[in-house]
Amino acid sequence: MQARGRFITFEGTEGVGKSTQLENAANTLKKLGIEFIITREPGGTPMAETIRELLLALREEPVHETTELLLMFAARAQHLHNRILPALDQGKWVLCDRFTDATFAYQGGGRGVSKERIALLEALVQGDVRPDHVILLDAPVETGMARARKRGELDRFEQEAQAFFQRIRDAYLERATAMPSRYHVVNAALPLEQVSASVAALLAALAKMPAPA
Amino acid sequence: MQARGRFITFEGTEGVGKSTQLENAANTLKKLGIEFIITREPGGTPMAETIRELLLALREEPVHETTELLLMFAARAQHLHNRILPALDQGKWVLCDRFTDATFAYQGGGRGVSKERIALLEALVQGDVRPDHVILLDAPVETGMARARKRGELDRFEQEAQAFFQRIRDAYLERATAMPSRYHVVNAALPLEQVSASVAALLAALAKMPAPA
Repeated sequence: MQARGRFITFEGTEGVGKSTQLENAANTLKKLGIEFIITREPGGTPMAETIRELLLALREEPVHETTELLLMFAARAQHLHNRILPALDQGKWVLCDRFTDATFAYQGGGRGVSKERIALLEALVQGDVRPDHVILLDAPVETGMARARKRGELDRFEQEAQAFFQRIRDAYLERATAMPSRYHVVNAALPLEQVSASVAALLAALAKMPAPA
Repeated sequence: MQARGRFITFEGTEGVGKSTQLENAANTLKKLGIEFIITREPGGTPMAETIRELLLALREEPVHETTELLLMFAARAQHLHNRILPALDQGKWVLCDRFTDATFAYQGGGRGVSKERIALLEALVQGDVRPDHVILLDAPVETGMARARKRGELDRFEQEAQAFFQRIRDAYLERATAMPSRYHVVNAALPLEQVSASVAALLAALAKMPAPA
């Protein structure tokens, strides 16, 4: 019987190098001869991408916190059932740019949405499914913000204070401490070559571990 | 202090005359000098209407049951917080074409979605808010289907068996029996004049009752 693939997510605040490390991870898996898909949240299927657009669109009408949370999880339900689970069932690894840990960090830690409400939707949408491994790219907030600013990516976020990103980083680190077997914290403040080497070594180690049940 | 308005929803299967009775209700409230808004679910605000379009659009990608449920409640959160509650707070009555009772009847009774999942989302989105009164227009399934067919409205539904509508009607009636103080069952199989007279009399009676707490 085909072994189930691994579900690996990449998390972290703005500017920590998620895109670069997703590419690096893809190259590593190619070298290891492992079949995989790369995907992202919110999004990952045509309908989920439409929901993503709806979430990111600027509009005059204020978007209620609960609306945003439900749209996020609606896209996630679609992504999980139509793309992630089928790939895992085919034995492919899934590399995903953000997942529910980001909801806990951004909406929960960053904006103060109740973690119980997020956990309730997590259970409703995912049942027992959780990423097998979360690769948390962690760096001091000012490091990430400086990088993102250089790329001109802070237009929308610059208004939100550094304190906001600090709360997000803290929420990620808190989850990493609470779930040490699932979370792999990578120091993303180190030079790029060292970060990439750490991520590649981590994936090679995971590939040698027995497949998750 | 301004008394809170009444939140009144109109429910029923296809072809029972909801639109006609919403108009009738509007005319009745006008005569009674009561300020009101008319709205509908899913929808009711620009963003909620966009979510409605997303829900109703035909697409190649199969829509997961959980995605549909979350989109429905995302639209509802937006509608409730941005339109319904502000109107009630201003003392206006809200006449709404379908609400959460329809989710219990269509998704729950009709398609077999777990009622516990629906109730969980109801609590998450609405807290303690429930319609003050549900006007259930009830008629044998064949009566409603014949009327809807005459209007050419069954394109999408004709494929779904009569048994489906029977389950929806049964779910509505079950809720009416369980919540007799909130549900008002109107026999929609009677001639239109009689149905309209019943609805008008009901609203006039509600207007004499003390405002809900």
